Amino acid sequence: MSGLDPEDFAPLRALAHRMLDDVFDRAERMGEGPVWQAMPEDARQAFRQDLPQQGQTAEALYGQFLEQIRPYSNGNPHPGFMGWVQGAGTPVGILAELLAASLNDNCGGRDHAAIEVERQVIRWASEMVGMPADSSGCLVTGSSLANFIGIITASRAVDPSMRQHGVSGRRLVGYAAETAHGCVSRAFDLAGLGSDALRLIPVDELYRMDDQALAARIREDRAAGFHPFIIIGTAGSVDCGAVDPLEALADIAQAEKCWFHVDGAFGAFARLSPEHAIMLDGIERADSLALDFHKWGQVPYDAGCVLVRDRAAHAQAFAQSLSYLTRADRGLAGNAPWPCDFGPDLSRGFRALKVWMTLAHYGASRMGEMVAECCDVARYLAERVEGDERYLLMAPVALNIVCFTLVDFGDEAIDELVKDLHESGVAAPSTTRIEGRLVIRAATVNHRTTRATIDAMLEQIALLGEKYAQ
Amino acid sequence: MSGLDPEDFAPLRALAHRMLDDVFDRAERMGEGPVWQAMPEDARQAFRQDLPQQGQTAEALYGQFLEQIRPYSNGNPHPGFMGWVQGAGTPVGILAELLAASLNDNCGGRDHAAIEVERQVIRWASEMVGMPADSSGCLVTGSSLANFIGIITASRAVDPSMRQHGVSGRRLVGYAAETAHGCVSRAFDLAGLGSDALRLIPVDELYRMDDQALAARIREDRAAGFHPFIIIGTAGSVDCGAVDPLEALADIAQAEKCWFHVDGAFGAFARLSPEHAIMLDGIERADSLALDFHKWGQVPYDAGCVLVRDRAAHAQAFAQSLSYLTRADRGLAGNAPWPCDFGPDLSRGFRALKVWMTLAHYGASRMGEMVAECCDVARYLAERVEGDERYLLMAPVALNIVCFTLVDFGDEAIDELVKDLHESGVAAPSTTRIEGRLVIRAATVNHRTTRATIDAMLEQIALLGEKYAQ
Ligand SMILES: Cc1ncc(COP(=O)(O)O)c(C=O)c1O
Ligand SMILES: Cc1ncc(COP(=O)(O)O)c(C=O)c1O
Repeated sequence: MSGLDPEDFAPLRALAHRMLDDVFDRAERMGEGPVWQAMPEDARQAFRQDLPQQGQTAEALYGQFLEQIRPYSNGNPHPGFMGWVQGAGTPVGILAELLAASLNDNCGGRDHAAIEVERQVIRWASEMVGMPADSSGCLVTGSSLANFIGIITASRAVDPSMRQHGVSGRRLVGYAAETAHGCVSRAFDLAGLGSDALRLIPVDELYRMDDQALAARIREDRAAGFHPFIIIGTAGSVDCGAVDPLEALADIAQAEKCWFHVDGAFGAFARLSPEHAIMLDGIERADSLALDFHKWGQVPYDAGCVLVRDRAAHAQAFAQSLSYLTRADRGLAGNAPWPCDFGPDLSRGFRALKVWMTLAHYGASRMGEMVAECCDVARYLAERVEGDERYLLMAPVALNIVCFTLVDFGDEAIDELVKDLHESGVAAPSTTRIEGRLVIRAATVNHRTTRATIDAMLEQIALLGEKYAQ
Repeated sequence: MSGLDPEDFAPLRALAHRMLDDVFDRAERMGEGPVWQAMPEDARQAFRQDLPQQGQTAEALYGQFLEQIRPYSNGNPHPGFMGWVQGAGTPVGILAELLAASLNDNCGGRDHAAIEVERQVIRWASEMVGMPADSSGCLVTGSSLANFIGIITASRAVDPSMRQHGVSGRRLVGYAAETAHGCVSRAFDLAGLGSDALRLIPVDELYRMDDQALAARIREDRAAGFHPFIIIGTAGSVDCGAVDPLEALADIAQAEKCWFHVDGAFGAFARLSPEHAIMLDGIERADSLALDFHKWGQVPYDAGCVLVRDRAAHAQAFAQSLSYLTRADRGLAGNAPWPCDFGPDLSRGFRALKVWMTLAHYGASRMGEMVAECCDVARYLAERVEGDERYLLMAPVALNIVCFTLVDFGDEAIDELVKDLHESGVAAPSTTRIEGRLVIRAATVNHRTTRATIDAMLEQIALLGEKYAQ
């Protein structure tokens, strides 16, 4: 026995094949059973133990997984999952994760195939949104980090010496729609600029940033001695899927010499659907862009991506020179620049394999169809809502997010109804606030959600609606 | 056919079983064949293609994986891998990744089992280092992010309104040994404090922070109007595995009302070995701590971890209130606080499963033995180096890192020799600089590395040494 490997691999191999069959059995029956069920207290208690001194067999742990973990899963692969903005994964993505784990590549850098695969998917992502094929980029956990990287890169483009001297005294300010995702304001906070330095611009009746208001606010800020450095457009807002007027924002950014960053966390994938691509015109002018393969890309969690048009600006914001990470012209320490030159991560797993396998297996055209199908299901929900006097559509449906409520239902009733809906196991939308009102928010990011799923959800909502009718 | 699922799962299931057997065949023969080999140009070219419109079969993609990815892997599971500070993974860790991918849980929050599993491993990590069992924490990509989170939390503990107003005008400064990992200085840069705000304190002859120099520098900074807010001790330095005098640093932090953060990226695991634990005394006094399960914890990449003693301080630095992420008292939106309240990530994969399975399968005591075995192998290498007049030991060996060189070898000769060593496929140490001199750095973080691996490496170095002898 060497190290932690088993003396005899045979029993573990047999267990592994059993696991794999269970994984496939579950995948084949996805949609049977509840989308979600609450974890009972005894299962929770099983994970409130002291650090074990002695180990348990893999069999025993797998038994615990089957009994106490798998049944109480998040539920996003289930067709009934429409909460938040979550992708559903695919069988190919699962296998890619198995293969990646078996290699155990550390993708912080060095000369190995995983780095080439990552470069490939960065190029594909750039092509997808229409940015130059030689754009720089890297995979990260999610768009929260990708947006942070965009903002850091933009600020260092103002003056790279900020890396040594800090952001003090520069009065840097940036702009995003008031409907921008909270991670953008958090990125300003984490970058030391403060969330107040992100100016939240009002939106029009379609929940898109008002570009006149943006231009006015920039003028005001300049007059007050601030230094506008970045404009952040959202392509697919978290609340209702609105797309900011990206061309107009790009024009203003150009005129104002600001960096143009786009948060396309899920919306960027609409670029793959010929019918929807046009809505995102202007996205290809982004200086940097965030998107998530784990959302509409259906890649297993987590797999975010940042793209930066100007490779040198990107490296200038992150590259370091460290003696224990010296780059060589050959050998394992070759192949610079390394991914760790483009983001805050040093050690990082082989996220690129699942992205590569997914895009290469389905191809851009099938992925685009899937996006269009999701939008179609959302439109169907919107139509059913609009055609039924019990419901109110609360926001225009640009892509795949439908916000609606029940006529005469206050916040508390909606809150209780959605919790009941979760507990029914039929469907799991989430909630948000539209014009101050708590509403149901169904996001069809899930390639398994169909019109039949929508029908089942509405039937259950109608039932519950009677319970809470006021 | 619904969404992206195959109409017939059978062929994919059969392929999956083949993949799994290949994974096990490779794991059983780990160590046969080269630790690393350069990727040929035609394999690289295969990953420089346009975004494919049409998809390829999973079989075809797996064929490409076998031919063009797997043979040109990073190599860290191989016993001969001693470069940088990389863990080797385990078979159980691979299976955990398969299971996690099949669930596809988004561990940003919500009420599901994965969140309970993550809380369990955070508790285990806290117990491991001796911090309170109810410490706060979360899993992240790696210690780069974990150190960043520690620094952000410490700064917001000075004044949480910094989140809105930024860090300007506060003159915050922190302290770490000059041998601290570069990600600490990068964290200061990213946080907007600037890397100059991290004071690098000289080390003693054992490469440990000089605590007298630290105290003096704090006095100096206070006199000059700076605001010292954090002292960062390293438990296991990246260059040579040195451990800062943690008790003394904790005392100074207490006296100076500074936050005490420990970077225990790999070194924290020495706490599991009764024989080595004493070297880390004082680590349990940390206000926050970074460690990597993907390093000495042998969990597949990536799996970093941050711990914070004061749960409220941790939440105060990251929590946000967002309408589309409202927490409920029951249903899927329950179970607050959520992991996204404790770090920059919102969407995040189920890293906790592989950590849980690894610790639960081996148990703390076997993990501690493994750590001791790695240190023993390093000591063996150090002894062989010291006993051979052709070699020079370049730094004391505290734990598992051995820096050495060949007598009369200049930087260029060492550089060429290490590249040749990589290309030989026998062993893969990396290089670093000690006292300005490029040296060979062998880190035995790999549970598969044995004395026999060391013998083989030294034999190959001796051969190559003749080639470059000056
Ligand atoms: C528009 C938008 N931006 C950013 C994010 C954050 O992305 P992630 O959860 O991958 O960090 C989301 C998540 O829902 C989003 O919808
Ligand atoms: C002491 C130390 N700190 C921090 C890090 C960075 O950790 P990661 O690569 O997980 O981001 C390393 C990596 O080698 C390290 O050795």
